Amino acid sequence: MECFVLGSGGMMPMPRRHLTSVAVRLQGKIYLFDCGEGTQIPYKKAHLGLRTLGLVATTHLHADHVLGLPGVLMLRAQMPNPGPLKLLGTPGLRRFVKHVRSDLGMYINYNIDVKEWSPEGGELAYDDELIRLYWRPLQHSVTCVGYRLEEHERPGRFDQQAATALGIPRGPLWGRLQAGQEVQVDDCTIRPEQVLGPKRRGRCMAYVTDTARTPTIETLAKDVDIVFIESMFGPDEQDDAAEKKHLTVIQAAQAVQRAGARRAVLVHISPRYEGAAVKRLQAEARKHHPCIEVARDGQLYEVALPD
Amino acid sequence: MECFVLGSGGMMPMPRRHLTSVAVRLQGKIYLFDCGEGTQIPYKKAHLGLRTLGLVATTHLHADHVLGLPGVLMLRAQMPNPGPLKLLGTPGLRRFVKHVRSDLGMYINYNIDVKEWSPEGGELAYDDELIRLYWRPLQHSVTCVGYRLEEHERPGRFDQQAATALGIPRGPLWGRLQAGQEVQVDDCTIRPEQVLGPKRRGRCMAYVTDTARTPTIETLAKDVDIVFIESMFGPDEQDDAAEKKHLTVIQAAQAVQRAGARRAVLVHISPRYEGAAVKRLQAEARKHHPCIEVARDGQLYEVALPD
Repeated sequence: MECFVLGSGGMMPMPRRHLTSVAVRLQGKIYLFDCGEGTQIPYKKAHLGLRTLGLVATTHLHADHVLGLPGVLMLRAQMPNPGPLKLLGTPGLRRFVKHVRSDLGMYINYNIDVKEWSPEGGELAYDDELIRLYWRPLQHSVTCVGYRLEEHERPGRFDQQAATALGIPRGPLWGRLQAGQEVQVDDCTIRPEQVLGPKRRGRCMAYVTDTARTPTIETLAKDVDIVFIESMFGPDEQDDAAEKKHLTVIQAAQAVQRAGARRAVLVHISPRYEGAAVKRLQAEARKHHPCIEVARDGQLYEVALPD
Repeated sequence: MECFVLGSGGMMPMPRRHLTSVAVRLQGKIYLFDCGEGTQIPYKKAHLGLRTLGLVATTHLHADHVLGLPGVLMLRAQMPNPGPLKLLGTPGLRRFVKHVRSDLGMYINYNIDVKEWSPEGGELAYDDELIRLYWRPLQHSVTCVGYRLEEHERPGRFDQQAATALGIPRGPLWGRLQAGQEVQVDDCTIRPEQVLGPKRRGRCMAYVTDTARTPTIETLAKDVDIVFIESMFGPDEQDDAAEKKHLTVIQAAQAVQRAGARRAVLVHISPRYEGAAVKRLQAEARKHHPCIEVARDGQLYEVALPD
């Protein structure tokens, strides 16, 4: 699983920092989180391709999270038959997309399916053959959701000794058992669980922005391999953060530490912080989580398969 | 008069080329032409300031010309009391702005006055104490207008010899005559035209994109000091250009040569042209106009006061 930080800024795009957006690539498929003004620029820079982009998950209807959508939608329409696209977001996303398509006469040559979060809609936002994506409401000035992406479990390890002891000859039968199918050996039915260890968990990431402190952060980031979390305010700006419904760097670091996240990346950095000030944010965060850093635009974070 | 090329690209923003937008600065005031996705990024880079931005003139309602408007509008709302802003564009601009403001809950702390071009509305789009701005319809796939900006005439040169011969003492009376006021000397009324030469023309620029060939280009760019004109297609792509209602580099160069434009800058360059290909476009254009070049993002074009 590769997580590309296309941008790490909050509020507005800057000459040296694009707006926060993360593209997750898994077995060639791309899942994009948030899409503020200009996101198509680093998207192209990262050479991610557009045919394999099947999902854009937005957190809320503020401009710095969705104004790049029309551009990405049109970019995708540059190729023939790009296949359908799923958009996730909060109530109003469908209307925004409908208005901008019609007001600007956008050419779109594929189906766009918009799904809006609702309190009654449950936690599963999306699933396919690779992942399940969950959403939960955060605490912001408008309805805003955070995401948790879980790769499906993999089959357990194949126990060669057990297979040999059961008299199953090495070859195609082993493959069928590994794929979860029963096989027949000498009139005897062998079930996969006789030769497979316990199922192994898939990889897991969370994407959490914009929000004030809320226990939901810990729910979303519980034991994840990597979490991308907003850190809009500096360590001493609790009051501003609370008023604007954002996190300080300390609140972000503490929340993902409590969640047991293995690794954390701070995004949605305020335009006020540059250069040395960013290093200070990171140093402050490290006091609360051993494996945390401030995102850099263009940085790729790889998540290896767990054992 | 300073003309900043904020971007020179057409169709979509690219990692190394922003979408076409030109900011004209005159006596501290800023007039912005077109505002595609991401224009606020080079706008900040150019340190132009936002309080002095009083007018955004858009050519048409395609995304690559207006999708950056919401970002610039919000950027301007970052300061207290930024003063009113005038938006010019084609029919539908008001609806686009209204929809996006409401759909994204944009915070705007100033008055936005949208004026839409209409066939009956006349050629004067806007005027203030410095300039008159004219618009005329071009030939594109949707309604699209080109602009001609004319600085007001300046008073003629002050003829010191004539003033002395008329017995007007050097001092405040000279200043009042220079400012166009009559003065009294020894019961004799002196009119400004007795000591001033003929009025001197102001500076003049044109902004012409997107369009197929049309005589309107020559009307807009007639004798201008500088024209920014689209050149979406290469020299051999007349058919594509005609079909998509754009200009080839040759058509652009010939039109501004016929118009008598003193200097021409090619903008709205296709993403297909980079590096050496851009140099070839420029070489081709120079066969048809002696003072023409392909725009570079960030380039400043100064227009001196004519004699």
